Amino acid sequence: MKRTSRDIRTANRYEVLRQIIAESPTSRQELAAATGLSLATVATLVGELLDLGLLTEVGFEDSAGGRPRGLVAVNASGGALIGVDIAETYVRVELFDLALNVLARADEDMRPGESRPAQVVGHVATAVDSVVAQAGVECARVLGVGVSVPGQVDRATGIAEYAPNWDWHDVPLLGLLSEQISHPLYLDNPLRACAVAELWFGAARGRGDAVVVNLGTGVGAGLALGGGLHRGVSNSAGEWGHTTLVLDGRLCHCGNHGCVETYVGAPGIMLNLRELSPRSPLLHPEDQTATIDALARGVAAQDPVAVKVVRDTARYLGAGIADLVNLLNPEVVVLSSWVAAALGEPLLEEVREAVARHALQRPLAATEIVLSPIPTDPVCLGAATFALEGALSSITQKANQRSNRRTWSKQ
Amino acid sequence: MKRTSRDIRTANRYEVLRQIIAESPTSRQELAAATGLSLATVATLVGELLDLGLLTEVGFEDSAGGRPRGLVAVNASGGALIGVDIAETYVRVELFDLALNVLARADEDMRPGESRPAQVVGHVATAVDSVVAQAGVECARVLGVGVSVPGQVDRATGIAEYAPNWDWHDVPLLGLLSEQISHPLYLDNPLRACAVAELWFGAARGRGDAVVVNLGTGVGAGLALGGGLHRGVSNSAGEWGHTTLVLDGRLCHCGNHGCVETYVGAPGIMLNLRELSPRSPLLHPEDQTATIDALARGVAAQDPVAVKVVRDTARYLGAGIADLVNLLNPEVVVLSSWVAAALGEPLLEEVREAVARHALQRPLAATEIVLSPIPTDPVCLGAATFALEGALSSITQKANQRSNRRTWSKQ
Ligand SMILES: [Zn+2]
Ligand SMILES: [Zn+2]
Repeated sequence: MKRTSRDIRTANRYEVLRQIIAESPTSRQELAAATGLSLATVATLVGELLDLGLLTEVGFEDSAGGRPRGLVAVNASGGALIGVDIAETYVRVELFDLALNVLARADEDMRPGESRPAQVVGHVATAVDSVVAQAGVECARVLGVGVSVPGQVDRATGIAEYAPNWDWHDVPLLGLLSEQISHPLYLDNPLRACAVAELWFGAARGRGDAVVVNLGTGVGAGLALGGGLHRGVSNSAGEWGHTTLVLDGRLCHCGNHGCVETYVGAPGIMLNLRELSPRSPLLHPEDQTATIDALARGVAAQDPVAVKVVRDTARYLGAGIADLVNLLNPEVVVLSSWVAAALGEPLLEEVREAVARHALQRPLAATEIVLSPIPTDPVCLGAATFALEGALSSITQKANQRSNRRTWSKQ
Repeated sequence: MKRTSRDIRTANRYEVLRQIIAESPTSRQELAAATGLSLATVATLVGELLDLGLLTEVGFEDSAGGRPRGLVAVNASGGALIGVDIAETYVRVELFDLALNVLARADEDMRPGESRPAQVVGHVATAVDSVVAQAGVECARVLGVGVSVPGQVDRATGIAEYAPNWDWHDVPLLGLLSEQISHPLYLDNPLRACAVAELWFGAARGRGDAVVVNLGTGVGAGLALGGGLHRGVSNSAGEWGHTTLVLDGRLCHCGNHGCVETYVGAPGIMLNLRELSPRSPLLHPEDQTATIDALARGVAAQDPVAVKVVRDTARYLGAGIADLVNLLNPEVVVLSSWVAAALGEPLLEEVREAVARHALQRPLAATEIVLSPIPTDPVCLGAATFALEGALSSITQKANQRSNRRTWSKQ
């Protein structure tokens, strides 16, 4: 798990590509200034990315008095990436160009009970076919499909080890998907997808240590430490939703009591509402999305019950986020995923106040708390980013093998 | 905060020196095998450490059929390091040789109320003079003094920003110490001292991600992630003692309620005992150490009150450690500091059971929970290690400046 010079090279390659995606066209000189890398390192990495067809040369700009500088940009049409967000109540699939613009989207609803692996795989395959057809890209140009599934996943084997909301245990998800999808597949979970989306394209970009709090049906905290994703020894770091906030509190489906998720996940927020006002018209008992949307509208209309529920939720959330601030001392905490997007600024303000009541002065002073600035589904974007990272690493592995062979043949 | 190739070089230098300290004499070949670094890298780093006088050549060993291999060892007498553990109730100072053997020790008791900065500084200066005199080392050979003080510290400015047990705010501790101590001084806190001691000499050595749980009067969790100390953006990561375990629970001196520390720090354990058995003979109301020692003896004698208090404490501790396991997915969790040392195996067993009840299956399966194997005061050892790291970095900075000048003069 120690970082090696190869890890650093990979991180630098990501950093340069991130910067070019954020700002194209650009010159090697601008890239060196923006990333803090040497011009020689940037030139090498840009050369590799040009060779791989991920970048393209787009002309020259004058530099005052010097030689004209070559400009590069993302070769947006050089390939396509697909991100799959398997959530508790829906499957969403998006197809991206290499600049990570959304070219096509497909949604499949999943009714309660419709959660057997074969059913979920069917929805994913249908939606993947749909986005490829909609975008009219050739199959060979799809560099990979990133798949996010809730719960604990083993990336190496492609197994969904434990999805608590569906009671899945050791489902060989990638194997099942590969029977119907021929593109390279990469499995991970939503908390890490949201974190990598922020790291590449959102509020964690260029920050040292960031925590991406993922608020959906499930709850987690993706950890971007030292500029990279902290995965832990068995790729299950970030299960903040199952840390104890109230000892002996609400029973959680994980078996523990008082988990953060039971107070601030969508079902937990519904319970906060039900405990306050059992017959509230805001409550849609079988529909998380409708309830959260009703709460958001209620807060906008200054409905006292909605205001109180968001305040109570923010109080739990603030105590939990203060724990992350005290433990990890991050530069930024990002509130991400659909519940955070729906409740927005009013939630953020209450959370900031609650964190300030709980956290220690010194780490609090160093931490900013923000809403995710990513305008699309961050889980799809993050899943597509895993596919981009996977494609980059498999391409560069091949390049290394070629250059090793060349070295060998010279001896 | 991103890791650069310079950070990697520093980490590799530490890794090689750690390995040599653990096993001397050794050859460059053995070091390469043990660290996973290339022989060329090891040879360069060993050369630097020899130049600095930290290592010494100690002969040759035969290698089957090949050239005899040069052996190197720590130059134990090449310098001295001092570690200072300023605790709530005492100041302990130890002087080490470069193999980190303790050559001299001095303890100063601090009575309740005797906690003004000038009083504490006086105790430290007296004890430092004492260990230098006892060991008979020349002042010039002391490479540095590492100082650990509880609470939040700013390493760069040497200010103790907040020591909750003493109500210290913004005390310029390093400035005050430097008026009486002429050696280079390095300030940090006990949770990071314990973590760096485990990373160099204990259960975290050679592990990817480790959490060092520091159980004393105060409580913290030093985070050794990716083979290095995770400090956070303002050097205050690790304040696990002030994360919420019981929402609206016991009032903590930090202002928050229900902090982990209020249940498992020494005063919290005393409160656990008092709540169970207000007039227990195990309770020494003004003496934390005596109470914890009485509990340890009580458990050994199967006193039911002592057994119950340790079980209750382990229940709190286990829930809190399960949070660390779920959030960080570490390879090892180390129980360190004087309370853990005093309560030992019986505490460890109860903690393991409690963690297993709270943590998720996947991260739990990947995590080992152990007592610190460090036989001496881990805070002094860690503080001395900060002095060693500081000395290494100041020496190598000078070496870099020299080599820069050489490069410059050639142009
Ligand atoms: Zn849970
Ligand atoms: Zn506290």
